[in-house]
Amino acid sequence: MGANKKFAVILSGCGVFDGAEIHESVMTLYAIAKYGASYEIFAPDMEQHHVINHLDGSEMKEKRNVLIEAARIARGKIKPLNEFNPEFFDGLILPGGFGVAKNLCTWAFDGPNCTIHPQVESVIKKMHKLKKPIGALCISPVLLAKVLGNVTVTIGKDVSTAQAIESLGAKHQSTGHAQVVVDEKNMLFTTPCYMLDATIVDIAEGAKAIVSEMLKWI
Amino acid sequence: MGANKKFAVILSGCGVFDGAEIHESVMTLYAIAKYGASYEIFAPDMEQHHVINHLDGSEMKEKRNVLIEAARIARGKIKPLNEFNPEFFDGLILPGGFGVAKNLCTWAFDGPNCTIHPQVESVIKKMHKLKKPIGALCISPVLLAKVLGNVTVTIGKDVSTAQAIESLGAKHQSTGHAQVVVDEKNMLFTTPCYMLDATIVDIAEGAKAIVSEMLKWI
Repeated sequence: MGANKKFAVILSGCGVFDGAEIHESVMTLYAIAKYGASYEIFAPDMEQHHVINHLDGSEMKEKRNVLIEAARIARGKIKPLNEFNPEFFDGLILPGGFGVAKNLCTWAFDGPNCTIHPQVESVIKKMHKLKKPIGALCISPVLLAKVLGNVTVTIGKDVSTAQAIESLGAKHQSTGHAQVVVDEKNMLFTTPCYMLDATIVDIAEGAKAIVSEMLKWI
Repeated sequence: MGANKKFAVILSGCGVFDGAEIHESVMTLYAIAKYGASYEIFAPDMEQHHVINHLDGSEMKEKRNVLIEAARIARGKIKPLNEFNPEFFDGLILPGGFGVAKNLCTWAFDGPNCTIHPQVESVIKKMHKLKKPIGALCISPVLLAKVLGNVTVTIGKDVSTAQAIESLGAKHQSTGHAQVVVDEKNMLFTTPCYMLDATIVDIAEGAKAIVSEMLKWI
């Protein structure tokens, strides 16, 4: 169903606690390819907010670059986000992970008062203006609520995050594993993934569901 | 088919050029869970041989720890390899990536004259002695040839690597995508994954095939 359809995937590093969630990222790429579509991967060329030791949760005294670390998931096939051109893509997908809330925006620290990375904001606005589908997994829907305002999204069942999203003028719908909320008017597709207590199988199902739903509209 | 079966998965870092290949690692975990089995993830607590910038291939002036980086793929749920006890597991799987050939052994530099990390050698020997299945993806079969000698494995179609493996007294069988070579006598299962020019769908199929084949013997 995805033949000749091309997605842009934006990653926010490599690792759930300071970058892109790896399972969500890999399962998104897999779902796109499995449905016969293709992808290009992008990440902003910027320093990570910080580096977290994924074994014990402590902050490490290191500096890492979002694009260079995201290249680990992409096996080197990745471009800086400032090279993104919406005309070349049929859809955009943002996997989750704390990197979304720490690097692509400051949600992890500022909640609904966060600022969005200007390149990320620009990409979302351009795709939205062209009425091209945007998919967001896990915590990434906060980007859509912050940038676009009056939209309908899901981040699962977390009440405080849902309320913070609604404070931006957006509507939140509660969802379970692999459920996708479709905002037809705005061509937005969201699914909770690891915002719920989930297994790797749930993540694969969630990625498959959101890509499949987006492809119906491309 | 995998109910109550438990795998140990050994990772060698996080990223194809200096650690565990991420797609192979994630797809291995996914295949195990999808078949209803469970897993625990291990990695040696050691410094990586080096750190490669996955965007441009250059060596970075940094030090990283194999266990701490592998924890990114494991979302923190990982143990040091010296805590591995073969009695708790029905099978062992080693995804690939240059981390196997740079951290778990020195194959990338020394070929068949490589040395094997003592904990990795110990784990392989213990599982082999207990006649419990060992699966190896991509370049990982070189560990089995080096440690066990007279075994039958595949690393795909690469002639020079196949010859190097045979110089150790092992037998190499040429394979295509998602084909699994089964050495029944030694309970070894090998499949080429990214040792071939492969897509992420090929990797998922390879991981599924090797886990499925191993479960038939557990």
